[in-house]
Parts: sequence; structure tokens; C-alpha cells
Amino acid sequence: MTIETMSTVIKGIAASPGISIAKAFRLENPDLTVERISVKDTDKELSRFEEALLRSKSDLDVIKEHARKEIGEDKADIFNAHLLVLSDPELIDPVKEKIQNEQVNAEFALNEVAVMFVSMFESMDNEYMKERAADIRDVTKRVLTHLLGVKITNPSLIDEEVVIVAEDLTPSDTAQLNRQYVKGFTTDIGGRTSHSAIMARSMEIPAVVGAKTVLSDIENGVLVIVDGLDGQVIVDPTRDVVKTYEEKKVAYEAQKAEWAKLVNEKTVSADDYHVELAANIGTPNDVKSILENGSEGVGLYRTEFLYMGRDTLPTEEEQFEAYKTVLERMEKKPVVVRTLDIGGDKELPYLDLPKEMNPFLGFRAIRLCLKMQDMFRTQLRALLRASVYGNLKIMFPMIATLDELRQAKAILLEEKEALQSESIEVSDNIEVGMMVEIPSSAINADLFAKEVDFFSIGTNDLIQYTLAADRMNERVSYLYQPYNPAILRLVKMVIDAAHRQGKWAGMCGEMAGDEIAIPILLGLGLDEFSMSATSILRARSQIRHLSKIEMEQHIETILSMSTTEEVVAFVKSHF
Amino acid sequence: MTIETMSTVIKGIAASPGISIAKAFRLENPDLTVERISVKDTDKELSRFEEALLRSKSDLDVIKEHARKEIGEDKADIFNAHLLVLSDPELIDPVKEKIQNEQVNAEFALNEVAVMFVSMFESMDNEYMKERAADIRDVTKRVLTHLLGVKITNPSLIDEEVVIVAEDLTPSDTAQLNRQYVKGFTTDIGGRTSHSAIMARSMEIPAVVGAKTVLSDIENGVLVIVDGLDGQVIVDPTRDVVKTYEEKKVAYEAQKAEWAKLVNEKTVSADDYHVELAANIGTPNDVKSILENGSEGVGLYRTEFLYMGRDTLPTEEEQFEAYKTVLERMEKKPVVVRTLDIGGDKELPYLDLPKEMNPFLGFRAIRLCLKMQDMFRTQLRALLRASVYGNLKIMFPMIATLDELRQAKAILLEEKEALQSESIEVSDNIEVGMMVEIPSSAINADLFAKEVDFFSIGTNDLIQYTLAADRMNERVSYLYQPYNPAILRLVKMVIDAAHRQGKWAGMCGEMAGDEIAIPILLGLGLDEFSMSATSILRARSQIRHLSKIEMEQHIETILSMSTTEEVVAFVKSHF
Repeated sequence: MTIETMSTVIKGIAASPGISIAKAFRLENPDLTVERISVKDTDKELSRFEEALLRSKSDLDVIKEHARKEIGEDKADIFNAHLLVLSDPELIDPVKEKIQNEQVNAEFALNEVAVMFVSMFESMDNEYMKERAADIRDVTKRVLTHLLGVKITNPSLIDEEVVIVAEDLTPSDTAQLNRQYVKGFTTDIGGRTSHSAIMARSMEIPAVVGAKTVLSDIENGVLVIVDGLDGQVIVDPTRDVVKTYEEKKVAYEAQKAEWAKLVNEKTVSADDYHVELAANIGTPNDVKSILENGSEGVGLYRTEFLYMGRDTLPTEEEQFEAYKTVLERMEKKPVVVRTLDIGGDKELPYLDLPKEMNPFLGFRAIRLCLKMQDMFRTQLRALLRASVYGNLKIMFPMIATLDELRQAKAILLEEKEALQSESIEVSDNIEVGMMVEIPSSAINADLFAKEVDFFSIGTNDLIQYTLAADRMNERVSYLYQPYNPAILRLVKMVIDAAHRQGKWAGMCGEMAGDEIAIPILLGLGLDEFSMSATSILRARSQIRHLSKIEMEQHIETILSMSTTEEVVAFVKSHF
Repeated sequence: MTIETMSTVIKGIAASPGISIAKAFRLENPDLTVERISVKDTDKELSRFEEALLRSKSDLDVIKEHARKEIGEDKADIFNAHLLVLSDPELIDPVKEKIQNEQVNAEFALNEVAVMFVSMFESMDNEYMKERAADIRDVTKRVLTHLLGVKITNPSLIDEEVVIVAEDLTPSDTAQLNRQYVKGFTTDIGGRTSHSAIMARSMEIPAVVGAKTVLSDIENGVLVIVDGLDGQVIVDPTRDVVKTYEEKKVAYEAQKAEWAKLVNEKTVSADDYHVELAANIGTPNDVKSILENGSEGVGLYRTEFLYMGRDTLPTEEEQFEAYKTVLERMEKKPVVVRTLDIGGDKELPYLDLPKEMNPFLGFRAIRLCLKMQDMFRTQLRALLRASVYGNLKIMFPMIATLDELRQAKAILLEEKEALQSESIEVSDNIEVGMMVEIPSSAINADLFAKEVDFFSIGTNDLIQYTLAADRMNERVSYLYQPYNPAILRLVKMVIDAAHRQGKWAGMCGEMAGDEIAIPILLGLGLDEFSMSATSILRARSQIRHLSKIEMEQHIETILSMSTTEEVVAFVKSHF
């Protein structure tokens, strides 16, 4: 008797781990249909619009405060972004002009302008701009409710334990969720990296997103199980199923409690071999959470976010402050900062780069920095100046040839000498390394190892290029195979090459936190594993149960396997 | 005293080898500016248009005959394409409708419709569609001259030795060139694979294309040297420079005569080691030329052309005829047929594939064939039926994983058994191999070698993926490095893996015909080199002067070099 035969099971994406069992609460969007109405008194219409903006602003102030208490300072930042949208003349002025020039109602004018911006941003094929589109949609919805006088269901008023069921949750919705009553949520749309998924993980609420039909399949008040571990939602479960899931929930929470004890522990294998578990971060605000999750360092600081959501390049001073903050907060723990990895699918509108036919094989990261040297040198100066505040390591992305590495290192040295000649203090212990994310640099790792202090294997890109498959492209995503023998062989080449030169090798792709990959990587001798903060304790616990020597003995067998399926089956059956 | 200080030297792309020294003949486009004129008598306008179409058709018939005599049957096919455009209702009907409905002159109507089609085809980011755009432009120009009553400079009237200087040469222009008088040409635009470049090579006229400023820098009648070997044009050279180039020309022609003697020779190194020199072909019509150039086989038959320039998939019968023709004309010499490599940048409009963000990392070749199995099985059946007419080898493109290879082989076996059960004869000696053009399959070559009869290394793609650089993208084309140690190491892995299993390894990318690469590939033990027909005799001559054993001794040194520059310098100084 399987679950499927007894209850409706809806498959989705596991966005935040854990199990929740509670009654469904449907969070439906109010009808915000807008009609075009001619108005004579445009002044009156303009003040209606201004008033709606003011009310929306005061809503957002309240929600921001709520979010700050419930989910923390950094995640509440999204509402600062919303407040900026509310006062952005690029959005607001065209609405006012439309009201005046076309003598139309504020709802219609706002909707027209917002739709134009949203479709413009969404067409940009870029995650960052798509999130800007989501922000505008969220803010527009809020202002429209005030103009139309309709109420948005207010999730902060929920006063019993529920599972939220919605088409999608806007950041405003998520922020208003009361952790005491909201036990989980599930949505029709969204992915692991959508705002709502990220917030769910921060709030530690189990969530299944992208489940496609939850809003149409689930009625208000029906019992629902959200399985954020396996990415499924069970609707109207039998008593037996509920019992099974209650046990699963208890087991998961016991495991979490066990993991929590490891926060201040070192990461050692069963046979006492130490590896470093570090975290990937995007902003200085992420430091608090990674330390709470037991990170031993920052394995990848993505500096792109400093450059995004603005009209001009960040100044040396702004960058210096960000780098200094991270280094200070990490208190001498290692911090690997990746220099700007922009271009390709990550656009910066103000750089005005031409559109490329194959952006993943295009002008990006170090390729772009070596050409736009002013921008690159500004970042390097900021990093060098910050170096005295902690344990800084500088890492160049997308290195394909020795020539590129040598050029990047030469520029770094020039900037260091220039600062020193101005009597500005720079640390003398900055390690300089590179991402290994292009097949050529893995294959030539022995040549590179002589000229760097460390490698960090970027598996997301390395897998894409090695299998020649864009993992964002659904029709070829079956070729995104972390355990393909070709990938494991390249990883081995990189680690071996580093060790032969007395250097260390880390990994900062998703594979580093993957339960199937971890035993293999331990056996291959990986020194540093950098992952998302929420995976660290699980990984630490896993490694404590593995024997490094035993893993080493299996490597030869694993590397001679023919397919990814064989590797997965072997690891699953052995460990 | 360098040439540069004495004369103007214009750099361009070497499109067709050889040296020509003659007076410039500027082939300028007539003024085809079109004005909108209202017409009352639309019937009269329609007959003007019909008459211009008829005159254009008779022009094209004459040019086609001329082309057939001067440059051969297959290249004259382009004018059949033009004749089709002239009678294509998709183009012609909208023009007629426009004349009637909008009461405008035929010139204006034609121009509007043509511009629309040209810009549509050009925006498709696809070489094939861009050539269709060029065809429409060429035909439209011809019809407009008849409507406007202007004369196109007729290159067939040239009666003294000249070098043609033009912005671009349309296929019609090239076909009318009289080999007796036209000694070379140079154009502002175009690349090595543009129509005019391909025609120049067939006609054996030296050509430099994409030279950007030749039309603005060169006056009629001035002496010009077209250096199709080094890709430069020297304007108004001094007597010394002319003398130098006359010597270069004599040396090149002596060399060509020497090469011509090798047409029926085997390809053997100085120490008597035999390799096979084969050619890449696109259609059965190419067979004549590759045999005249001494090819020992077909190393790559690109079957895409069978699928292009039509509205529906080619039938099994059409394909069978094409494959049979090639096999018969090759008279038992080996013919490696690559199954359909479509998708990505090579679109087939009638398959209606969605646009991809990174087509080079997308749904193409075997990936697509394994999903669209009806299409794939039709091709395999046609190949199997043709197999009894010669020495057929079947090759699958873009294999990334063993799983894909196994699926493709299983489908082939099913179709073979199906044919046999219908008592249709199929050869029992068909070798089955794969392209190695994705890094994973090179790295896992030992695993693949057990399950194929041969490998053919597709360097064009292998280099792109290994260095993660789109070679069509000018800003990263510096990363297209055939001699990068990573590429040479992968090539070695593939050849060694093949030989350990008693299989053979070939190469069908541009690298196989490259003068710097050939000594290295000989040393690495490559068994088959497949290149463009015009490179075969040069390569055969080169190999006859190389010692296989000596090359082998240098391999270790070359593979431990750090950069592409070191490799090139070593090969140049040693051989």
C-alpha cells in the first residue's frame, strides 16, 4: 500500500527542509482588475495616487519591522528595495504624466507603466533583473489595493497552525508569515532560488515550491503534509500516512538537534582527518548566518552583488568597506574573495555589453576584467587595502589559460606595489588562487599549480562545459552530471596537482555540499568544501561518520565506472 | 625597409591562396535608390514587374551556363537557388498584392517586401539563413536594375588582366568573373566561409576578403597585389615590392605543381609510416573535387545539407540516393557519414525548435536525434540500405555520455534487424564510431573505446568547450587555441585509448589540415586526417618530409609546455 494510492501526492521542488502537517490556508490574490476611466480632475487623481503611495509606504514600514524581528536584519533588506521602488522617479513620474496627459485614472496609469517595466525586466534573461521585475510587481499590487480599496489577505492575522497554499508568495507575503502559526508553505510556481524559497530557509519553515497545481488541488481547511525533504505535498492523508510523517518529522528534528551540537566542532572524519567546511556568501550580511551554522571560513565571496542594482560602478571606498566588514566579522578565519564574475548571463546594464549568442561561452569574469582594467584595478586596490583586517585570499574566476592567470597576477602585484609606494599598509600573507571551472584549467592543473597558492573547483560551470550542456536548458539538463566519471577524473587531476606542489584544493560549487559527492571528495583528498550555510552541519555530521582511508580505497573503483548511475548506486549502497 | 613604409598595406582574411598582381578594377554597385510613386494603372505596373522577372530569369540562365563552364556543375547550383527565389510565391505574391492594394510602383513594392525578408532572415543568427538573405538581396538587386533601367557593371566584359575590388561580391558577380582576365579579388566584407570565398577557392583565384577599406582606399587602374597566402593587399607597390611578390608567386606555383604530382600517391612519412588523408564533404557533388585533390576517403560527410533549404524532412528515399551516390563515386574508399548534427546555431525552420540561450550548449545533434527518433531512424535506414554500395562507416555527433552512445547504437541495431527481417540487404562490415568533440568523451575515451569501432576528433567544438569560448565571438576568439596543452593532452588521451583497444582515431576539425598541428598529430599517432579538399596535397607533401619516430620523441616535451605560444614556437623552429 503506497501513499500514492491513498492520498493525492503533488510533486514539487524541495525548497526548505523539514516536515509540516497542518490545515491548508489558501492565500489568494484579490481581484486587481483595472479599467481605464477618463478623469477630468487630474489634480484630484494625482492626490489619490500620492495617498496610495503613502499608505503603501506605511504598510511596508510595518512589514519591514515585522520581518526584521522574525527573519533578521539582512533578509528585511528586500523591503528597503520595495520602499525605493515606491519613490523611484523612473516608475512614479511616468504614472503621474500619464494621469495628467491622458486624463486617466491612477489605477490604469500605474498598471500600464508597471506592466511595461515588468515585461522589460523579465525579457532580460537575467536572474537579477527578473527579481527586480518581481519587486515592481509586488509593490504595484500593494499600491493597487489601496487605490481599488480591496483588502489583501493579511497572513499576519493567522491565529492557528496552518500550511500556506498559494500560487506564489511575494516577499511581502513571506515576511508577514508568523512563525508561530505558519508551519509550512507550498506554491504553484518558483524554484530553489526564488525569494520565497530563500526566505523559507532563513525562517526554517518547510516549503515545497513549483508544485504547479497546489492552488487548484487543495481546498481551504483540508489537512496537508508539506515534505520539504523530498519535495512533495500530500493532500488529505490517511491516518497511517500522517503517522509515518510524524515519525519522519521527529527523526528529522532529532537529526537537526544532533547537527546543532556540531556548531563549534571541527570537521573531522571517523579516522581523525580534518577538512575545512566553509560557506558561500554574497554580502557582508550573510556572515552572521554562516557563523551560526558553524562555518570555518568563507570559501566563496561572490562580489557581483556589490555591482548590481545600481547605475554606476561601486567606488573603491564602498568596496573596501564591504571587504573589511566581512574580514573583521570572520575574525581571522579564511575568506576567499572571488574577483568580479560578471558578463554572460549576469549583466550590468551600465557596462552596456553587447548581447552574445552563447553568453556562457562569452566575454565574462576575468576575460572582461583583463580588458576593463580600471574596474578590475579598483576592486583589487579595495581588496589589498582590506587585507590587513583579516585572513584574505584572492581568487580569479574563469581562468582558461596560464597567460590569463599571469596577467591577472601581474596587475595585482602592480596595484600592491602602488599602494605600498603610497605607504598604505597591505598584508604580506594574501594567498592568490583561481577557480577551476573550465576544462582546460583542470586538464592543465599541473601547470597552474606551480603559479597559484590554491585552487577552488567551481563545479557548476565545470560540469556544464565538460558535458557541453547548459544546465538552465531543460532539454539538456539530463547532462548535468556531477558524478560522471569525466568530472570525478578532472576533480582528481586538480587535487593531485595541487598536493604535488604543496598547495590546497577546495570546491565551491553545489557538489561540495552534496551527500553523494562528499564521500568521494573526501576520498579524493579535497581540503576545503564550500557550500550554502544551511548544508554545513549536515555535511559535518556526515563526514564524522566516514573514514578517509576507507574512502581512498574505493576511489579507483569509482573512477573506472562507466556512468553516473553506477557511481550513485555504489555510493548509496556503501555509505 | 619594410613594405609598410613604402606602400599601403591593407590586412584582410586570406580566403583563397595564391598571389596576383594586376590593375584594380572597381566593381561598384549602381544606384538602386527606390522612390514611392503612386500608380493608377496597377495592371500596367504588374506587367512591368512580370517583365523584369522574366528578364532577370534570362540573365540568370546565361550566368548559370557561364558558371557551369567556368567553375563547375555543383557551384553553379547557387543560380538554381536564385531562379527559385524569382518564382517563389512567398516573395512574389506579396509584391503583387502591394502593387495592387497600395497602388504603388513595382520598385517600391519589391524593395519593401525584400527588405522585410532579408532582415527577418538575417536576424536569425544562423549561417544558413543569412545566406538565404544574401540570395534574396542578390536577386532583388537584379530585378531592380531591370525595373529602374540601370546597368550593373558586367564583370564578364572585362578584357584585360585585373584584380577586382568591391564592397562584396554577390554569387552572380563571382560566377561572371572570367578566369582568363580576373586574376584576383579583394572585398571589404565577408569571411572565409562566405559564398565569394568558397567560389574563389573553387576557381583558384587568389582572394583577400573582409579587408574593410579596399573600396575606399583603392582607385581604378592602380597596381594592386592580392596576397591570398598571408591575407593582405598591397596598393601601389614599389618596383622592389612587386619583384618580391613575383618571386613569392613563382615559388608558390612551383610548390603547387610539386603537390599536384602527389595526387595518386599514398600518404607516407619520411620513415615510411602510412596515415590516411581524407576530406570533409557536404554533398555528393563534392566527391569529384576531393578525388581530384587526392583524397583517400571521406572523413566527414556532413548530412545537414540534405535537410536544409526545404520545407519538410528529406525522405528515406532521397537520403538513400544521396548516400548511395557518394559511396559509389568513392569506389570502396572509406566514407564516414556523420548522422544529423542539427540544432544549436544550425536551425531547421520546419522543426520549429525553441530559441535557446546558449545554443552551443543546447539541444542538438545526437541529443535531438535521440528524442526525435522518427527522423533519426529514417536517416539510419537510408544509410543501412546504402551500405552495400561501398565502404560505409556511421558516426554519431556530440556524444557526451556512454548512455547516449548505447542508445544510438541500440536504435541502429533495431533498424538493421528490421531491414533484414524485410530481406533488405545490409552490409555486415559497417564500422560504427563517434565524434569526440565534448571534453567528457575525450576524458572518458578509455570507456568509449571499448564500445566503438573508431573515434573522429572534432576539434572545432572540442576546443570551444575545453576553453569555454565561443569562437564566433570576437571578444573571446583569442581563446580558440588548437595548440593549448589541454587540447593536445585530450587528443593524446583519445588516440591512446583507441589504440589500446585496437581501434583507429581520426580527426575532422580544421586542426587536421593545419601545418603547425600536423607534425604533432603524426607524433601522437593519429591514423586519419580529414580536411578540406584543397589542403590535402599540401598536407601529403608536408608529411612526406616528416619522420614519425622523430615526432614521437618530441611529444613529451610539447605536452609539458605551458602555453600555446611555446608550442607554436617549438614546432616552427624544429620542422
